[in-house]
Amino acid sequence: MSEFHYNPHISVDCVIFGFDDEKINILLIKRKQEGENIYALPGDLVQKGEDLDVAANRVLYELTGLENLYLEQFKTFGSPDRTSDPVDVEWIKSVREHPEARVITVAYNSLVKTEDFDYRPSSFAEEVLWHPIEKPQKLGFDHNEIANTGWAMLREKIKREPIIAFSLLPEKFTLRQLQTLYEAIVGLELDKRNFRKRMLRNKFLVPMNEKETGVSHKPAQYYRFDDAIYKDDFAKDQWFLF
Amino acid sequence: MSEFHYNPHISVDCVIFGFDDEKINILLIKRKQEGENIYALPGDLVQKGEDLDVAANRVLYELTGLENLYLEQFKTFGSPDRTSDPVDVEWIKSVREHPEARVITVAYNSLVKTEDFDYRPSSFAEEVLWHPIEKPQKLGFDHNEIANTGWAMLREKIKREPIIAFSLLPEKFTLRQLQTLYEAIVGLELDKRNFRKRMLRNKFLVPMNEKETGVSHKPAQYYRFDDAIYKDDFAKDQWFLF
Repeated sequence: MSEFHYNPHISVDCVIFGFDDEKINILLIKRKQEGENIYALPGDLVQKGEDLDVAANRVLYELTGLENLYLEQFKTFGSPDRTSDPVDVEWIKSVREHPEARVITVAYNSLVKTEDFDYRPSSFAEEVLWHPIEKPQKLGFDHNEIANTGWAMLREKIKREPIIAFSLLPEKFTLRQLQTLYEAIVGLELDKRNFRKRMLRNKFLVPMNEKETGVSHKPAQYYRFDDAIYKDDFAKDQWFLF
Repeated sequence: MSEFHYNPHISVDCVIFGFDDEKINILLIKRKQEGENIYALPGDLVQKGEDLDVAANRVLYELTGLENLYLEQFKTFGSPDRTSDPVDVEWIKSVREHPEARVITVAYNSLVKTEDFDYRPSSFAEEVLWHPIEKPQKLGFDHNEIANTGWAMLREKIKREPIIAFSLLPEKFTLRQLQTLYEAIVGLELDKRNFRKRMLRNKFLVPMNEKETGVSHKPAQYYRFDDAIYKDDFAKDQWFLF
């Protein structure tokens, strides 16, 4: 066995979630592959001398056109047979040598507003799309596992740092908008009255002297997110002592 | 440039923290290296066809004799020059070919009671030791950065899941023991009265009908950790709604 086989390829994969004011979507590419319709996460090999974070940003940009996102590394996936599905091997043959070589991948995630980012497919991506996370979609390689892990870890992070979720809302928002976002993240429909009662206990949610205008229904009150109260209330060191 | 240079080596590094009833220590090895005293984290290359988690357990065992720990992957470090310090290169030359090859490393951490684990150096480890984390120690490669990141991420986890810390105490413990542990994790000395007052607000801390015996000072009350109350109180889904 040559040295080559011993040294695996290293890739990066990007799990990008986007909120479109209604639901959470995941950014997928459709591979250029004759006779197959395979969707996958945007990902590719790390280059010689390239830092991992730099590679993640480059690969995402090259395949989808998205740039200037905050990408966070969340886990590395290295199961020895993660690229051995025959359909995947067939595709790898078309883009690089040594399709049998092991590939270990470092996964990154991010959460954005879909409207803030333009996309266009290029390189080996035939298509780029925002796919709703509640709709099942089989992905290439072990990308379903990577996507699920990426979402689970992001949700845990939002639990600890809710400010991440509020960054997806406009500066002034209604409780209806907040409930829609909240339900999209938690993945549950919630009772409106209960939601409002409990949510308003959070002091960082501040009512404004302003209501919706130009709507056919009863205009709703606007709220804003108060960063200072949040930091005081929520983001302080939460050791079990306190 | 041959394919070999393009495909980096992959290694695993283990950041093991151990509580010895007084302080938190980190498990280090001293490398077998002529004329040098270099300490490092236990780590080595992943083998062909070997899963990452399996590699971490194997490498830790081979170098230190520690086995049956719960190792958790926390981050992958891949800076292109992380193994280029001349002293490190010199050492790599003595253990493997291609000392100039890039090495990307997947890091794991764990927190144990030191008394639960025997250790003995073997392979390229000349020595194994528990080093107190409050005492600075220069390590080989980028191992200081890896160790610091491993500790920071573990502390964050303990904040969210204090049960991890309680697993380091005996089944019955005094408030003095709890304070010692707490100070070791937080890295601060705390006022005894205040600590007790605030800590006892946690209902999962249950006083027992039992006191210390055979001590020269006034016997202290024993407490136990109540798993059920903890789960009810603390471990429930902490979405910002509630």
